[in-house]
Amino acid sequence: MSNKIKVAILGYGNLGKGVELSILKNPDMSLEAVFSRRDPKSVKTINTPVYSVENILDYKDKIDVLILCGGSKDDLPVQTPEFAQYFNTVDSYDNHAQIPEYFASVDAVAQKSKKIAMISVGWDPGMFSINRLFGEALLPDGETYTFWGKGLSQGHSDAIRRVEGVKAGVQYTLPSTKAIEEVRSGVRPSLSTKDKHTRECFIVLKDGADASKIENEIKTMPNYFEPYDTSVNFISQEEFDKNHNTMPHGGFVIRSGNSSNGINQVIEYSLKLDSNPEFTASVIVAYTRAVYKMALKGEFGAKSVLDVAPALLSMKSNETLRKELL
Amino acid sequence: MSNKIKVAILGYGNLGKGVELSILKNPDMSLEAVFSRRDPKSVKTINTPVYSVENILDYKDKIDVLILCGGSKDDLPVQTPEFAQYFNTVDSYDNHAQIPEYFASVDAVAQKSKKIAMISVGWDPGMFSINRLFGEALLPDGETYTFWGKGLSQGHSDAIRRVEGVKAGVQYTLPSTKAIEEVRSGVRPSLSTKDKHTRECFIVLKDGADASKIENEIKTMPNYFEPYDTSVNFISQEEFDKNHNTMPHGGFVIRSGNSSNGINQVIEYSLKLDSNPEFTASVIVAYTRAVYKMALKGEFGAKSVLDVAPALLSMKSNETLRKELL
Repeated sequence: MSNKIKVAILGYGNLGKGVELSILKNPDMSLEAVFSRRDPKSVKTINTPVYSVENILDYKDKIDVLILCGGSKDDLPVQTPEFAQYFNTVDSYDNHAQIPEYFASVDAVAQKSKKIAMISVGWDPGMFSINRLFGEALLPDGETYTFWGKGLSQGHSDAIRRVEGVKAGVQYTLPSTKAIEEVRSGVRPSLSTKDKHTRECFIVLKDGADASKIENEIKTMPNYFEPYDTSVNFISQEEFDKNHNTMPHGGFVIRSGNSSNGINQVIEYSLKLDSNPEFTASVIVAYTRAVYKMALKGEFGAKSVLDVAPALLSMKSNETLRKELL
Repeated sequence: MSNKIKVAILGYGNLGKGVELSILKNPDMSLEAVFSRRDPKSVKTINTPVYSVENILDYKDKIDVLILCGGSKDDLPVQTPEFAQYFNTVDSYDNHAQIPEYFASVDAVAQKSKKIAMISVGWDPGMFSINRLFGEALLPDGETYTFWGKGLSQGHSDAIRRVEGVKAGVQYTLPSTKAIEEVRSGVRPSLSTKDKHTRECFIVLKDGADASKIENEIKTMPNYFEPYDTSVNFISQEEFDKNHNTMPHGGFVIRSGNSSNGINQVIEYSLKLDSNPEFTASVIVAYTRAVYKMALKGEFGAKSVLDVAPALLSMKSNETLRKELL
């Protein structure tokens, strides 16, 4: 047996595949298994064995951390409380408005099982959350602005695809250029979510589906689309396959604040991502290492990225980190 | 007595004044005292009482955290080990090459006294260090680039002013525009420190001082100037007062990496600061809160920003942070 961190994945879509790719870049980890609800023979990984989720409990003492790669809308609210009974877990739950409730339901289980359940890991929620916190803690007299895009949102695309009658669909988030420039200038404008972004959906319908019903269902979906200026475009499968097959994303968090009268300080964190799911996966894998280290120290319960000291993310010793990075 | 975090400052220069200003923006903290080696009557604070450092131990049970605002070259290596015997401390020690040695000397004291000594807090070392760590942990297959400026460096200006014969002096760090563009393009160029920056000094001489001797002493100063392309300019006191009286700074940390073949991901963290000492002070004050919370939990020893979970920096409860920021 190696002394690498033993990891397993539940759910092998874009995110699960991203996690498999990311673990290949992290030599202190070993991906032991992919678990799927599908027929294991139908799941093609890079080089990881696939098992049915029905057998997952056979692995409960063979896995240090289980990475839950299901969707936030239907999968994670059920899976995380279930599997946090048996495994240290990491997930990327991204329905911001429901996070307190989700945290509570996961924490109740993880407190009993004495496992760590790290929720909502990725870049937003995730790295952007950390930067929002840094921004307001460092410059209490200030304003924080989060912009997304242009990019494809996994969570929102997932939500679209679950609407009855949708054969294929993607959602792009676009930042408002005018709003960005205003914020960067050091002014502190008052901007609603609608002022900052628009949402653009491209959908392929199933045969006989009702376009206007689907458009209405998407535009009124609470939290996901209802608060935004959303456009819904119906296109052919051919056009979809040609123009909507990559998953770029990005965005930034800006804190503009005053340390004293007239002294303006601007902090900006930004991401330019060729692949959103692969970057989310990369963040998840780094936090998987943190979960492993926190569990070794005897910690347990639900956690978020806000609870993790940066050094826990690294393969390097604290001494090396201080020497090389501080 | 209030139940605010009780803070004191040792050393009231630009940084000490910045800390006093920052604490005014943080309603959960109370600045109880400024301690100085100068005659307390000669030190003009905004509204904080000033005492002689000789009386500092009278306050050892009245202060939760002592912020050490002295210089890295001569003050902190003596002061921090001395005062970590009696106080939880925060400092901004910024001589990167000497950090491991400095950490060890402070840790030896803080382990015995069971106090927390948080070293090297600010933006570099500090927020930039955290972002270098995040960069390599999230994208292990990549390169990190740190650029500074254009801006005035406190530590380097301090070092200049300690050179015999120097009446007044400032040092500006300038990033190379060509190098920045190369990095942002997603290429991973190999750049030495000299390729990325130059250092520019403006100095007013004391009467009878030997300019060429001073120029040589600066250019050959280890760690501070020797590895850089440094220019030294001698100017009049009049020109100095007119053109070199503000302390702007900035810079950025870029991580360019691949999550898989051909998939490039770029993370960028940047600062645009009207006042470098005030921003450093703002970071110090946030980490002062973290020191207080860590001490309450019974932790002790030398620490760095890499050891601090983001939530510890905030005035808000973990519940509120998850709800508002995650």
